Amino acid sequence: MSTTVGQVIRCKAAVAWEAGKPLVMEEVDVAPPQKMEVRLKILYTSLCHTDVYFWEAKGQNPVFPRILGHEAAGIVESVGEGVTDLAPGDHVLPVFTGECKDCAHCKSEESNMCSLLRINTDRGVMLNDGKSRFSINGNPIYHFVGTSTFSEYTVVHVGCVAKINPLAPLDKVCVLSCGISTGLGASLNVAKPTKGSSVAIFGLGAVGLAAAEGARIAGASRIIGVDLNASRFEQAKKFGVTEFVNPKDYSKPVQEVIAEMTDGGVDRSVECTGHIDAMISAFECVHDGWGVAVLVGVPHKEAVFKTHPLNFLNERTLKGTFFGNYKPRSDIPCVVEKYMNKELELEKFITHTLPFAEINKAFDLMLKGEGLRCIITMAD
Amino acid sequence: MSTTVGQVIRCKAAVAWEAGKPLVMEEVDVAPPQKMEVRLKILYTSLCHTDVYFWEAKGQNPVFPRILGHEAAGIVESVGEGVTDLAPGDHVLPVFTGECKDCAHCKSEESNMCSLLRINTDRGVMLNDGKSRFSINGNPIYHFVGTSTFSEYTVVHVGCVAKINPLAPLDKVCVLSCGISTGLGASLNVAKPTKGSSVAIFGLGAVGLAAAEGARIAGASRIIGVDLNASRFEQAKKFGVTEFVNPKDYSKPVQEVIAEMTDGGVDRSVECTGHIDAMISAFECVHDGWGVAVLVGVPHKEAVFKTHPLNFLNERTLKGTFFGNYKPRSDIPCVVEKYMNKELELEKFITHTLPFAEINKAFDLMLKGEGLRCIITMAD
Repeated sequence: MSTTVGQVIRCKAAVAWEAGKPLVMEEVDVAPPQKMEVRLKILYTSLCHTDVYFWEAKGQNPVFPRILGHEAAGIVESVGEGVTDLAPGDHVLPVFTGECKDCAHCKSEESNMCSLLRINTDRGVMLNDGKSRFSINGNPIYHFVGTSTFSEYTVVHVGCVAKINPLAPLDKVCVLSCGISTGLGASLNVAKPTKGSSVAIFGLGAVGLAAAEGARIAGASRIIGVDLNASRFEQAKKFGVTEFVNPKDYSKPVQEVIAEMTDGGVDRSVECTGHIDAMISAFECVHDGWGVAVLVGVPHKEAVFKTHPLNFLNERTLKGTFFGNYKPRSDIPCVVEKYMNKELELEKFITHTLPFAEINKAFDLMLKGEGLRCIITMAD
Repeated sequence: MSTTVGQVIRCKAAVAWEAGKPLVMEEVDVAPPQKMEVRLKILYTSLCHTDVYFWEAKGQNPVFPRILGHEAAGIVESVGEGVTDLAPGDHVLPVFTGECKDCAHCKSEESNMCSLLRINTDRGVMLNDGKSRFSINGNPIYHFVGTSTFSEYTVVHVGCVAKINPLAPLDKVCVLSCGISTGLGASLNVAKPTKGSSVAIFGLGAVGLAAAEGARIAGASRIIGVDLNASRFEQAKKFGVTEFVNPKDYSKPVQEVIAEMTDGGVDRSVECTGHIDAMISAFECVHDGWGVAVLVGVPHKEAVFKTHPLNFLNERTLKGTFFGNYKPRSDIPCVVEKYMNKELELEKFITHTLPFAEINKAFDLMLKGEGLRCIITMAD
């Protein structure tokens, strides 16, 4: 048995003390897991836009000091009371949203929006006792979306932990904890393009490229990438994107451009930017009769989706998805298997690697829009 | 062989000479069917709101003189060149929208919006030669949606004719040509409620009640009827409606009322009024995670559907349907079989019967909002 079980672990964590200021590497105390919690040793974490969004904390009720991070992979160090399906040594991915397996959402085959463990970006504490497991000199450092993976050790609710194949390389599959699964599932689970079909992808960042990867895996023959940044097209080809449309190149709405390219519209579209105009275009560019548009990007609070209802009555479908409709504990281990079976390529998403000590450089890269995913190696 | 084959038939028809004026019973000449056309003897026709809408012709480019009518049943009198799957004597339902079996829509399993024969409310002539088959003293009387069933004989494109079981009572199954199939299919083919689920139906006219009938057949356990007219509730119970909500009785939006009644929202909703506020409510009243809303009602031209995109991102789906997603030739014969097998009840939709000579009374009933369907008996 590990000598750390039941003990407070002192380890390194990158603490966000205030909005928009560089993270500070600190020694933090990580309390043992309580009922239905597990403590994880994080080996790899990557940076996602959501971390940056909550670090900038613009227009939010900021929760600081906080340990950010939610795309990661690690190993179970110890488990709390009542945890039966995870044990020390298990290889896992912590996930920002959970699966209690007991609520109406978890029992529904159609939903992954667990009532108990659905993402909560305002809560900085654990559900069990309303307290943080992180502290410095006895003062709490708050959690982030139940994961806080910018720390060598973290405590997570068991419902937010996916147990994966121990042979999977953690430095690759860590990206499946959030963005890549989100885009992939939006295509494979929700848009469901058929073999030979056409798909438009709005936004060619990591999530959009993962949606393209899903369309490629599903056998779509035309994958039209839409982005305001033409420099993204070359890279997008690696993800199966066959054509590129830059709305800036046209005086008419991009949905009309796509309809002309495709004899009336694409079979499926996936919107990964969160911009309301792109959402409307993504819906209106699908073919009448059978077109399905899927919204993934998170919009501005005041955004309003507007369209003529005839666009629906002509037999178009609009759906939204959250985390690609994957149930974290039930489904994410299968996505890892897809990678192990070489159906899914992950290496091409990983454009940078940095040691934990240089985590602020990963923020710089993302702010500059450089690369897709930067893997941060915790033990270095 | 009938002595009328290849001949002009002179018969009675109710002609709309001008917008909003009573129909006039006239002797009209009905030319023989041309290539890919069939001539039908209409035995029963009923009146649908769409007939009244185009008769009133408010805000439209009016096409007059015209023979309205599109919910009907009859028998094939003769067939034109190239018609191989229909023969004189066949029992049929003419349908306002067609199935050519050759276009991308007909070949898609998901669409019934035939590119060649999709409803066209402005065209008053046949596709083959751009001319009408109806005339009085050599002057054309125009067609309506390719059916014009307010006539003892009519000429219809073969793609708009469903061949049905000859044992089916035509005075009942005639209502399956339009409104009843539209509502029924919206539930059974598009909303697809599961056994024990909850469904909200917006609008308790004939189409909405047919949607309720579909939900009842699918085994929904709660069917919530929403209508501004409380007098419709008693009748709606016959169609499986279990609860009634009148938006006028509440100060808050009806979607909130329904969410409270159902612990977060209904599993499915079907909108059958065409009012934009009802469309928005129908979408917003479905449960997050798995809710599906289906739009059926045809909105005002300037209507704009508006909602917060988060309502989609919380995994709600919005779809529209046209004629209940039924392909007229392939599927409507099966709906007739559902009636023959006593799965589907049609008698309760038929609230009035009138002889052809009194067709204007059917318009009066509909304008007063009395009853659901009035069957007009052609031969009396």
